[in-house]
Amino acid sequence: MTRAVSIIGLEGFPAVKKGDNLAELIVAALKKERVPIDNGDIVVVAHKVVSKAEGRIVRLGDVQPSEKAKKLAKAALKDPRLIQLILREARRIVKATPEIVIVENRFGVVCISAGVDKSNIEGDDAYALLPTDPDRSARQLREDILRLTAKKVAMIITDTYSRPFRRGQVEFAIGIAGINPFRDYRGQKDLFNYVLKVKNTAVADEIASAAELVMGQGGEGMPIVIIKNLSNVEFKETASTSDLLISKEEDLFKSTL
Amino acid sequence: MTRAVSIIGLEGFPAVKKGDNLAELIVAALKKERVPIDNGDIVVVAHKVVSKAEGRIVRLGDVQPSEKAKKLAKAALKDPRLIQLILREARRIVKATPEIVIVENRFGVVCISAGVDKSNIEGDDAYALLPTDPDRSARQLREDILRLTAKKVAMIITDTYSRPFRRGQVEFAIGIAGINPFRDYRGQKDLFNYVLKVKNTAVADEIASAAELVMGQGGEGMPIVIIKNLSNVEFKETASTSDLLISKEEDLFKSTL
Repeated sequence: MTRAVSIIGLEGFPAVKKGDNLAELIVAALKKERVPIDNGDIVVVAHKVVSKAEGRIVRLGDVQPSEKAKKLAKAALKDPRLIQLILREARRIVKATPEIVIVENRFGVVCISAGVDKSNIEGDDAYALLPTDPDRSARQLREDILRLTAKKVAMIITDTYSRPFRRGQVEFAIGIAGINPFRDYRGQKDLFNYVLKVKNTAVADEIASAAELVMGQGGEGMPIVIIKNLSNVEFKETASTSDLLISKEEDLFKSTL
Repeated sequence: MTRAVSIIGLEGFPAVKKGDNLAELIVAALKKERVPIDNGDIVVVAHKVVSKAEGRIVRLGDVQPSEKAKKLAKAALKDPRLIQLILREARRIVKATPEIVIVENRFGVVCISAGVDKSNIEGDDAYALLPTDPDRSARQLREDILRLTAKKVAMIITDTYSRPFRRGQVEFAIGIAGINPFRDYRGQKDLFNYVLKVKNTAVADEIASAAELVMGQGGEGMPIVIIKNLSNVEFKETASTSDLLISKEEDLFKSTL
């Protein structure tokens, strides 16, 4: 029974407001719930509380749609001000139909609505944007937790993704710190001395999905999850979610959809 | 600290041979490792041990390539006998280049090489095919475990998937029993009474990914993982991984790749 990993959801996490120090809230919640924090723990955070703390909540009433947004809004059958927000967060529009707007977002991620999302945001016309730089947010949280607890943790900020080919959504990593997002087996030998050629597991995405199982609804009731005793990952100082992205040229699934 | 989920990898699982009763091996390993089994536990199995038990290992020396396979093998720069195996397991070829063969497999899953895989299989020219019917395999394992232990578990058989848009692989569910593969929030209200429109979490895939974190290399060193205390899922008698698949017409990412 040696490899038992724990996924612990923090109950009773407070509502997060602009300007809150999220690391302090996390450390206080850990203390209150009597969850110890240790070196090598992985702290997983649903991005929406990061967005709230960083003031990345926008009211449509405060948005002035451009002509481009108005035009696209007609094709997408959406509020032009919402389209304006999506355009702000996007490098390029990949697809716009009455059903869906898919973009390449500021970080190069192909996703629906550039991550602009309504759920669990207070205010009828209020939407959450992704954190300005989720890797930087993850690094800051990690440093703050080190300062507050003297413990070195890995940090993963997550978002919900729809996927090509498969129904439903899973949680993926959008910001990381202190952890290699991959466990790369390429070049290693398997049980029968065959050299593995492809296996390069995206552990950061798997950790995000594992945490979501405990986070539950939208991740906002329980946005903070601690993972303990995970030995199959590499903790490292420099890390970026940009490594999880693949260019269209490299994408093995190019021209399959 | 109420929502703590455990992911337990079973050490020392024996090598699996054709004809083995996998459920008996699992129950024996649980006993040996002193891991209790309870109603509501989720047993996750790397598909390769299921393929081995079901005799789904094929030697290229025993394969006669068709003319079609020989032709395709030239385009794909692969052994015609390997292509023959892939063709056998496929409904249609989606893409074939010297780099990659992507097919829609017998179950409608778009994937690389139809799941035909070399790693952790004994014999230089031996390859594993997917189980004949992974949902049926999962149901059988679940029934056998119920018979042996009087405990009702959920069962998930997994495989490793490369994904469009993102680097590296994650583990997804290819066979399930006793569990709803989704947690559907559509129609429910969020923290601020907004009715959720999209959120339908593919928990079966998230569970597969969570288990992989413990399984480690190829899942063959530790192919069996038990997940305990996961309350955010619905246990149900009828379940199928076909629900996880989406037709090309329904796929929101159509024409984006």
